Amino acid sequence: MFDWLDVRAQARAKAGLRRRLVPRSADSDVRNLAGNDYLGLARDPRVVAAASAAARRWGAGSTGSRLVTGTLDAHAELERDLADFCGVESALVFSSGYLANLGALSALGGPGTLLVADEYDHASLIDGMRLSRSDHMRVPHRDVAAVAAALRDRSRKRALVVTDSVFSVDGDLAPLAALAAVCREHSAGLLIDDAHGLGVLGPGGRGAPAAAGIAGAPDVVVTATLSKSLGSQGGVVLGPARVIRHLVETARTFIFDTGLAPASVGAAAEALAVLRAEPELADRVRASARALAERLRAAGLDAAEPAGAVVSVRAPSAQQALDWAGRCAAAGVAVGCFRPPSVPDHVSRLRLTARSDLTEQDLDHVVDVLVATAPARADERLLAT
Amino acid sequence: MFDWLDVRAQARAKAGLRRRLVPRSADSDVRNLAGNDYLGLARDPRVVAAASAAARRWGAGSTGSRLVTGTLDAHAELERDLADFCGVESALVFSSGYLANLGALSALGGPGTLLVADEYDHASLIDGMRLSRSDHMRVPHRDVAAVAAALRDRSRKRALVVTDSVFSVDGDLAPLAALAAVCREHSAGLLIDDAHGLGVLGPGGRGAPAAAGIAGAPDVVVTATLSKSLGSQGGVVLGPARVIRHLVETARTFIFDTGLAPASVGAAAEALAVLRAEPELADRVRASARALAERLRAAGLDAAEPAGAVVSVRAPSAQQALDWAGRCAAAGVAVGCFRPPSVPDHVSRLRLTARSDLTEQDLDHVVDVLVATAPARADERLLAT
Repeated sequence: MFDWLDVRAQARAKAGLRRRLVPRSADSDVRNLAGNDYLGLARDPRVVAAASAAARRWGAGSTGSRLVTGTLDAHAELERDLADFCGVESALVFSSGYLANLGALSALGGPGTLLVADEYDHASLIDGMRLSRSDHMRVPHRDVAAVAAALRDRSRKRALVVTDSVFSVDGDLAPLAALAAVCREHSAGLLIDDAHGLGVLGPGGRGAPAAAGIAGAPDVVVTATLSKSLGSQGGVVLGPARVIRHLVETARTFIFDTGLAPASVGAAAEALAVLRAEPELADRVRASARALAERLRAAGLDAAEPAGAVVSVRAPSAQQALDWAGRCAAAGVAVGCFRPPSVPDHVSRLRLTARSDLTEQDLDHVVDVLVATAPARADERLLAT
Repeated sequence: MFDWLDVRAQARAKAGLRRRLVPRSADSDVRNLAGNDYLGLARDPRVVAAASAAARRWGAGSTGSRLVTGTLDAHAELERDLADFCGVESALVFSSGYLANLGALSALGGPGTLLVADEYDHASLIDGMRLSRSDHMRVPHRDVAAVAAALRDRSRKRALVVTDSVFSVDGDLAPLAALAAVCREHSAGLLIDDAHGLGVLGPGGRGAPAAAGIAGAPDVVVTATLSKSLGSQGGVVLGPARVIRHLVETARTFIFDTGLAPASVGAAAEALAVLRAEPELADRVRASARALAERLRAAGLDAAEPAGAVVSVRAPSAQQALDWAGRCAAAGVAVGCFRPPSVPDHVSRLRLTARSDLTEQDLDHVVDVLVATAPARADERLLAT
């Protein structure tokens, strides 16, 4: 039965698209610019202590689905706190951001609804659209006019526009205010995945919808993750109370999944408290990303302008991207390597993520390593030997 | 845009199908027969200490997707340990059991594959089949002949039979050995969701496939959760090394999701160590469930014969099931209440779950409360007042 898997594996290997898991050790001294711990809170002693305290108080697991035994007081508190911080009526925590997107789209979509998605939307949004059994269409990247045309010409009564806020590949920003206006004009809803915006964009890190002035709007639903800026695990849907009630009662990935573990709930709540107390963390990560991109460009690399924490650098090919990332790792700098099918335009990239705790010295070192190991330079070096 | 949600909510309320989140407090003294902490390990001091230690060592979150920065040494160790315990070549940990099922089915299915599923399969398996874009069909519950016919008559070259081991609603067991034989005969694979079997069935809790003598077979893939017997959070796929490699390289819910949080990884690993050291935990939970079902039936209630830890008791209607569960809760016993659409045959049920740490006294009390609050009795009581 499974012989075909070997054939596929050989084809991927031939195309330079093998992927392998490389475990990291707890005491690695690599400079990590590959993770999504944008505010450096995953290892913050306050956040770690909160995770431990929650495990001691509630146990290691939530023991059931949220509607049975899996909702602790801690979930309810975190939901109130997230809703308040983001300026929305209500919030619902899922065990992962992926499941939050699947749940929101399958509950809000359906055969009577047209979903309109940016072609660069995250995999979890695409899967959510498929799962929802809605009519759905992809529109060109950041193309508000295409969205407006899709909404105007639709045959379905209901419609929902679906977009990342900060796109995960290039780190660029969706035109949220314009999208919200177009949705309002055409009586459509707007669902924004703010995974890379929460904690980074908006006043004090309140997210991209707050930055665009549309937080709390009655026709906007926001999803986000607790595993990036908040240093923990899990996902959340933020929006009008009636949307959240609908998800509680109908979202399959909420109803039939075990509730988020207490330690992760406690850690996310404490990270949010830290962010409230230190709103400058959000400013700092953005400044760090901008400085990183500027210096890489000044050194002749093809770095995109970052809207948030993600800095993307184009590579000549999938194999060269992989080799480049390998040379960076050997030089003590971990960077992400995005290759097809993770990149919608088939252009492979190195993907660096800034953190609010990067120092000037860190930035200098990272830029030096990226430049010294860049494909062209590396080729010259090989020729010289 | 979202006005239609209120209409739907009213319809659900009218049909007695409202659902609401009821947070529980850490110091509740309710007897909990609603959760899935079958071995009582979620609050075991060793497991809780391991969760805390892992958070301190690795941080509160894994900081990225498994292929970027989200694989810690701890994930790799847990995967080796789970594979060894379950007698398979390889294992892959996901951040939830739901995502493990979505990932396994969408990576192993596809347009060239027929998926054949039991009509009582868990929601995450059904969603996985939808997401996989395979041809798929549902066959009657536990019907091996229907599976054989579907495999024999198929037009697709590849086929995968998909079943729960212990079905979550009634707690009954799939005919795994017979299904494996039929799959082998027709060159099909068999995917078993052992969420309710791991830690409960098989020698020392090695799961339903081990109990059926098919653990480690080259055409069998097993999924399970770390959030039930192992008291933590997360999911796992267990199977041949080439299946796991294929998932690492192609399963979207693995590639595009943040890795499981360190505390949950540490807790699951320690729970597994406890189960290895105390294999009698598995025997005890099964004995507990059988005793509970026998006593309920002796008292005239319609309790199903449990294969594992789940004991299901039929109720006359959705509303009466809800009211019954409410009266149990008021009397200090938490039980699950399964109503449409969570029950495939539209019969509402109370759902009790045994634990290996239930005492004789606990069992007596639970049976007394269930009997005293049962719908017929409660009606008589009302008539008498």
